[in-house]
Amino acid sequence: MASILHFRKGKPGASPGVEYDEIQKLPSGTSHVYVSCIDYSPDQVQIRDVDDLDDFLAHHRPEWSAVRWINVDGLTDMKVIHSLAAKYQLHPLAIEDVIRIPERPKVESIGGPESELQARLFIIARMLQINEGKLENEQISIFLGHKTVLTFQESHGDVWDPIRQRLQTKGSRLRANDASFLVYALLDAIVDHCFPILEYYGDRLEEIEDLVLASPQRTTISVIHRIKRELLLLRRAAWPMREVISILHREQHECMSEVTRVYMRDIYDHIVQIIDIIETYRELANDLTETYMSSMSNRMNEIIKVLTVISTIFIPLTFLAGVYGMNFHHFPEIDKVWGYPAFWGVCIVLSGGMLLLFHRRGWL
Amino acid sequence: MASILHFRKGKPGASPGVEYDEIQKLPSGTSHVYVSCIDYSPDQVQIRDVDDLDDFLAHHRPEWSAVRWINVDGLTDMKVIHSLAAKYQLHPLAIEDVIRIPERPKVESIGGPESELQARLFIIARMLQINEGKLENEQISIFLGHKTVLTFQESHGDVWDPIRQRLQTKGSRLRANDASFLVYALLDAIVDHCFPILEYYGDRLEEIEDLVLASPQRTTISVIHRIKRELLLLRRAAWPMREVISILHREQHECMSEVTRVYMRDIYDHIVQIIDIIETYRELANDLTETYMSSMSNRMNEIIKVLTVISTIFIPLTFLAGVYGMNFHHFPEIDKVWGYPAFWGVCIVLSGGMLLLFHRRGWL
Amino acid sequence: MASILHFRKGKPGASPGVEYDEIQKLPSGTSHVYVSCIDYSPDQVQIRDVDDLDDFLAHHRPEWSAVRWINVDGLTDMKVIHSLAAKYQLHPLAIEDVIRIPERPKVESIGGPESELQARLFIIARMLQINEGKLENEQISIFLGHKTVLTFQESHGDVWDPIRQRLQTKGSRLRANDASFLVYALLDAIVDHCFPILEYYGDRLEEIEDLVLASPQRTTISVIHRIKRELLLLRRAAWPMREVISILHREQHECMSEVTRVYMRDIYDHIVQIIDIIETYRELANDLTETYMSSMSNRMNEIIKVLTVISTIFIPLTFLAGVYGMNFHHFPEIDKVWGYPAFWGVCIVLSGGMLLLFHRRGWL
Amino acid sequence: MASILHFRKGKPGASPGVEYDEIQKLPSGTSHVYVSCIDYSPDQVQIRDVDDLDDFLAHHRPEWSAVRWINVDGLTDMKVIHSLAAKYQLHPLAIEDVIRIPERPKVESIGGPESELQARLFIIARMLQINEGKLENEQISIFLGHKTVLTFQESHGDVWDPIRQRLQTKGSRLRANDASFLVYALLDAIVDHCFPILEYYGDRLEEIEDLVLASPQRTTISVIHRIKRELLLLRRAAWPMREVISILHREQHECMSEVTRVYMRDIYDHIVQIIDIIETYRELANDLTETYMSSMSNRMNEIIKVLTVISTIFIPLTFLAGVYGMNFHHFPEIDKVWGYPAFWGVCIVLSGGMLLLFHRRGWL
Amino acid sequence: MASILHFRKGKPGASPGVEYDEIQKLPSGTSHVYVSCIDYSPDQVQIRDVDDLDDFLAHHRPEWSAVRWINVDGLTDMKVIHSLAAKYQLHPLAIEDVIRIPERPKVESIGGPESELQARLFIIARMLQINEGKLENEQISIFLGHKTVLTFQESHGDVWDPIRQRLQTKGSRLRANDASFLVYALLDAIVDHCFPILEYYGDRLEEIEDLVLASPQRTTISVIHRIKRELLLLRRAAWPMREVISILHREQHECMSEVTRVYMRDIYDHIVQIIDIIETYRELANDLTETYMSSMSNRMNEIIKVLTVISTIFIPLTFLAGVYGMNFHHFPEIDKVWGYPAFWGVCIVLSGGMLLLFHRRGWL
Repeated sequence: MASILHFRKGKPGASPGVEYDEIQKLPSGTSHVYVSCIDYSPDQVQIRDVDDLDDFLAHHRPEWSAVRWINVDGLTDMKVIHSLAAKYQLHPLAIEDVIRIPERPKVESIGGPESELQARLFIIARMLQINEGKLENEQISIFLGHKTVLTFQESHGDVWDPIRQRLQTKGSRLRANDASFLVYALLDAIVDHCFPILEYYGDRLEEIEDLVLASPQRTTISVIHRIKRELLLLRRAAWPMREVISILHREQHECMSEVTRVYMRDIYDHIVQIIDIIETYRELANDLTETYMSSMSNRMNEIIKVLTVISTIFIPLTFLAGVYGMNFHHFPEIDKVWGYPAFWGVCIVLSGGMLLLFHRRGWL
Repeated sequence: MASILHFRKGKPGASPGVEYDEIQKLPSGTSHVYVSCIDYSPDQVQIRDVDDLDDFLAHHRPEWSAVRWINVDGLTDMKVIHSLAAKYQLHPLAIEDVIRIPERPKVESIGGPESELQARLFIIARMLQINEGKLENEQISIFLGHKTVLTFQESHGDVWDPIRQRLQTKGSRLRANDASFLVYALLDAIVDHCFPILEYYGDRLEEIEDLVLASPQRTTISVIHRIKRELLLLRRAAWPMREVISILHREQHECMSEVTRVYMRDIYDHIVQIIDIIETYRELANDLTETYMSSMSNRMNEIIKVLTVISTIFIPLTFLAGVYGMNFHHFPEIDKVWGYPAFWGVCIVLSGGMLLLFHRRGWL
Repeated sequence: MASILHFRKGKPGASPGVEYDEIQKLPSGTSHVYVSCIDYSPDQVQIRDVDDLDDFLAHHRPEWSAVRWINVDGLTDMKVIHSLAAKYQLHPLAIEDVIRIPERPKVESIGGPESELQARLFIIARMLQINEGKLENEQISIFLGHKTVLTFQESHGDVWDPIRQRLQTKGSRLRANDASFLVYALLDAIVDHCFPILEYYGDRLEEIEDLVLASPQRTTISVIHRIKRELLLLRRAAWPMREVISILHREQHECMSEVTRVYMRDIYDHIVQIIDIIETYRELANDLTETYMSSMSNRMNEIIKVLTVISTIFIPLTFLAGVYGMNFHHFPEIDKVWGYPAFWGVCIVLSGGMLLLFHRRGWL
Repeated sequence: MASILHFRKGKPGASPGVEYDEIQKLPSGTSHVYVSCIDYSPDQVQIRDVDDLDDFLAHHRPEWSAVRWINVDGLTDMKVIHSLAAKYQLHPLAIEDVIRIPERPKVESIGGPESELQARLFIIARMLQINEGKLENEQISIFLGHKTVLTFQESHGDVWDPIRQRLQTKGSRLRANDASFLVYALLDAIVDHCFPILEYYGDRLEEIEDLVLASPQRTTISVIHRIKRELLLLRRAAWPMREVISILHREQHECMSEVTRVYMRDIYDHIVQIIDIIETYRELANDLTETYMSSMSNRMNEIIKVLTVISTIFIPLTFLAGVYGMNFHHFPEIDKVWGYPAFWGVCIVLSGGMLLLFHRRGWL
Repeated sequence: MASILHFRKGKPGASPGVEYDEIQKLPSGTSHVYVSCIDYSPDQVQIRDVDDLDDFLAHHRPEWSAVRWINVDGLTDMKVIHSLAAKYQLHPLAIEDVIRIPERPKVESIGGPESELQARLFIIARMLQINEGKLENEQISIFLGHKTVLTFQESHGDVWDPIRQRLQTKGSRLRANDASFLVYALLDAIVDHCFPILEYYGDRLEEIEDLVLASPQRTTISVIHRIKRELLLLRRAAWPMREVISILHREQHECMSEVTRVYMRDIYDHIVQIIDIIETYRELANDLTETYMSSMSNRMNEIIKVLTVISTIFIPLTFLAGVYGMNFHHFPEIDKVWGYPAFWGVCIVLSGGMLLLFHRRGWL
């Protein structure tokens, strides 16, 4: 449940935004932070793992580089964040959003002609993955400048390997386009990665449906409950993503090329379809709960009914046996020769009659 | 459930859109793809099955042809798609939508005066059919140019035979109008085909309603569940279709004649009515679930009640019989002559009294 | 259920709209179609039953006639519809809507200055009536011209007799106004006729409420179910009517006088109130289902509880009687003089104690 | 339920609106109608009960009078309504709304520069009161002119006594302002009077909550049902009132001073808060139903469980006693000295074992 | 429940707004009211507890003071409110909102160039705190002028201590900015304080979820009910706050600097996220109720099933024992040597058979 119910926000009442000099004062975590840099142009590409960030930032990018993409895996090393923030003049509020996770997916235009800061698009997205049957989600923060893309991930491991491959392929559309097209590709990968997740849930819903209709178990309800909860999380991630993509598609921005905006429409269609499927799954899951409850109740009632019928047939017979076990001295039937066979006769007739009656009424 | 829960999207992170040369590299399926072409003008009509597509595309259309409609049945032969895409300059993103099914119904304007591509309307629709009691759905992709209509279907068999007949009828309004009117007729046939489907579900709901009110069965709940799920699918197909038709009706486009836009209003009315009916059915189905549960529970309770009443009447009598079966040596009533008849008297009075009491309280 | 679940739409894929010459080819029904015509002006009024429609249409209306209202009862005679369609140049799509019922209530502006057709308002409404406890609904199609009103009804019998009377009353506001005011009066009659229907359902809900709270029956659930279904139908008729009236009130049209548009506001208020009441009734009905289920369950539980208490009291006693019915030879209590009275004493104390206990715990 | 489910609308199809001369022909009721008139200016105030209305209307108001407020208690005397309608030129449709109750709360602008009628605001509001535990509601119709306010109430008794007092207080803001400010004060009193009503329902919900959580009764469900129904009525009155106040606040009208429009914002805040509370109460009530059902079911199950456990313990014992009551001649245990004590030993061990088992499984 | 269900509004029908001279006539409470004042500029800061308010207000603020923040803890001393209202010309309607709590969160622009009053923003917010497991909420009223901020709290104790500390820190962004930035910081603290509250509820939901899935108790339902009710309160506080922040972010006002408006966007993101989480929690809580009911019912049914199975096995055996306890004189089996062992054989076979049957059917 952690991913839905927990968050580690800053102390309430703390200063808003994080200034450059404040960043370094924040406590750093222990896990290693990986920084990688890809420079590319239609003709050339260079991929580097950055170990000494300050040294790296001190040098200019190669002249042929049309787009530089710096990716940071892990938010625990405040020095890394400070160096990048200082170099690329990131807005204090944006830095706060990057490090005080989880933030809701959103897009913000920062800086521009009338501001002292350079124009940038700041995008927060949510990357979803299924790991060993568990739904995991990670916050992705993206800064898009004219020729630079900065991405921050919570932890190592992402869904972007196909993009890295395409960047290495000469003549790929990705190489031929500008920085905003890279952002499009990154978002597209994140969004498209939801389809296998949905397929996973689709399969599980189908299994549960078979189970519910054929042989519902006591534990089935908690399985349905868990799927519902995870669909809730998916939905909470998908709706604001839709808004983000819609804004990127509709609104002009100097860092966003016209070509990219047209392609954004494609992601938008996908995210709408994803939401559509999530909502359908949620309705299916709700319906399954209802059907489950009805099935369980029917099953239970069936059992109770049969057992009660058995009891009901024997109770009058037991009474009759009790009667002929009485010790009255003046007991007419008791010494007749036909008494005992007659008793059995009555028993058979009685129980047969009741069975017939119950059967006719459809109780059996 | 397949149709709701499964989809075969491309690999996440893959390049967006499908370029012309990429198409041919995609794996083709084995099933045969049928291509047919109809040329018509108010005066003339020619229907051809196209076997050699490349040869066919190499020739110009006859001069008298006012509208050419090329229909492709099946999406498995990538060479066919490549040839048409190259000939008619289809946009890479549109080709991706055609072959990476299912895509949500949508309409897109592609190209135009300020673009290098020719102006086209690209429409994705969903064709629904009931086949042997199973709801099937198929994606239809339509490209509308000035004088050309391209349609792609997932598989052979469609709802357009009446349109092909009308095209052969001289003087029909269809023949007298332009390409956009053909698209209108195609969409109209798809939408109108939902009415018999709805009637099918209406009939089934009516049957179930009779069943639920008269004699609910254990299995009725899964029948209701299945109908609900299929109504969910219908709904998911109908809502975006409404949007598509609404855009076609409202927005001007150079490939869309004024006359056709007026007629689109007619489809719009139909799709609104369809959605109306679907929502009504969904409410009915939900209500039936509730009524079913209540009916089942009432029926069950009725049975349990009668059985319990029987037990309750016999239990005190059995106790009494037990009493007179005791072996106490000093047992005043046991040797009286009236003892045994009195026992039966007490039994009759007791059970009669209880029956009366239960009857008065309305328990029987 | 017929009225919700069935419809007789044209064949899917058929040609859109119905041309004048196509009308006559459509199969006519056998039931008689009544046509009546009322001409009126502030000074004069003339009411006629039209037997020979062609002869009637061949003559001009009297010169004094300010408004002509032609009402057609029944849609089965295609010749009648053809004659009127030809005479008044009705649009093919409109004719289709008239004869392919049911159509959703709507309003459409046809023709006008820039069109070859004369300006008309085409309105589809739904007339609801309660007949012998059954809710019936009928489609009303209205064509409003400058000086002419055409109305088509599905069958004989309507709610417009008070309007015919008012037309015969000299000096009535209806007589003094134009054709659009007549349409207003017709729609007003249709809408206001919903109030007695709502009152009928209000009464029934009240009866059911008393029943549910006082003595719920097994069959009550199907009564509630039926009311819910009919409220669903009412709602489906009322919502689009609201839209129709709203458009008539807000939008200007050359056939619609300013005075009439002000009066439309009055119908609009009524239809909003009707929707309000329907939604309230639906919530009440839903709440009644819940209360019913809870009542039934409480009632049932009450019975089961009492019966179970009876069993529970007698079961230990029966055991005790069984004990003293055992045939052990060494049985200390069995030959004591106080044995039998002591047995009864124990029985009374045991059952009294249990009753006391159950009473204290509130189980009785 | 009367107030939700019944209404006395005019005959459907009757003439729309009520002309001045028609008013007098309407049947008058028998109950007395009270008319009072208050004239005031910042300096002076005069309160009169009007017995002879025609005589009263024949005289001009005193010259010092800045605002005249005529209040009519009761809608049964058609002569009163006729006289006022004629004197103040009330619109026929407005008169119809006044006398054909209940009408939905609304506000309408009548007349004005381009009309032959004088500009007026016509407001319909709903006054709610709790009388001896019953929620009552009354329609209030208000006509606001430049210097005149007309109010019509269904019956005697209202919530405006504090306003009458404030009018008599020299220097009160009410006296210093114009007619529209009086209307503001009247509406403010009506809206603010909802707060004690809500508090009444708040108290009742709290009582029921305690009941449901501590000791739910069979009758609790009908109490909850009744509260829900009354909250439904409150809601139906509050939502359109919100619309009315919103229009009065936002839209300019020549009878409405700027100062009053600013004050309307205050009522608007209150009515929004009222709706907020009503919706919260409705959710609480729904939740209480659920909690109630669950509590009842838990309580019932608890009882049934204990009773069933008792039966289950005794049934094997009874069987054992039955065994030793059998009359087999060859019965080894029966003549042993230890037979009888051993029987009791087995009984104690058996029942003790079962109790232990049930306890361990948490069934007790 | 108090906080949801109770309020202490003024008498309905009372004069709207509270004039300066009326304030003093209102009854004052007994609890002490704390007034504190903080003056600050980028260079200097002075914090004072104000004991003699009139004396304090009679003096001008120090010349270096850029912003003065006066905070009033407690609304019981009408003299304090009167003095401040008179000094800072607070609008009567605003004063009413301050003292007649609770008011819905809102923001209002008062006065300005065209008014006789000075321009001010009047903001009502709701401060939420968890105190010893109980959710408490307090109304905060804020007046923002050009250089002055007035805040009124219902009672002592707030969430603003971090802000007071930051004001004392030289060079903090708060000190460097204007009065509107202080208001931003105050609102930010209030909104951010919701996160620990949500975390508290998240933890509780998680506990309950574990409980419901593992071992649901009778009392669990009331715990869920209480959480739902408190989430309802949270929601009622959060939604209007969202509106308030949205207005502050979007709309320009002369007291609100551009810088602050940008920062408001940050609070807006937080409040949207809070609402998101609340709605998710509400869905989770609803789902938990359903799962709880299903779990309880399953658990109960399990018990009843086992008990019923036990009864069902013993009832035929008891009947058999009864049979051989009968006293018929002609009783063939009774004097056979194998009679008694045979009886036990039959018993074992019968009960074994039934156990086997029940097991196969999955009833055990």
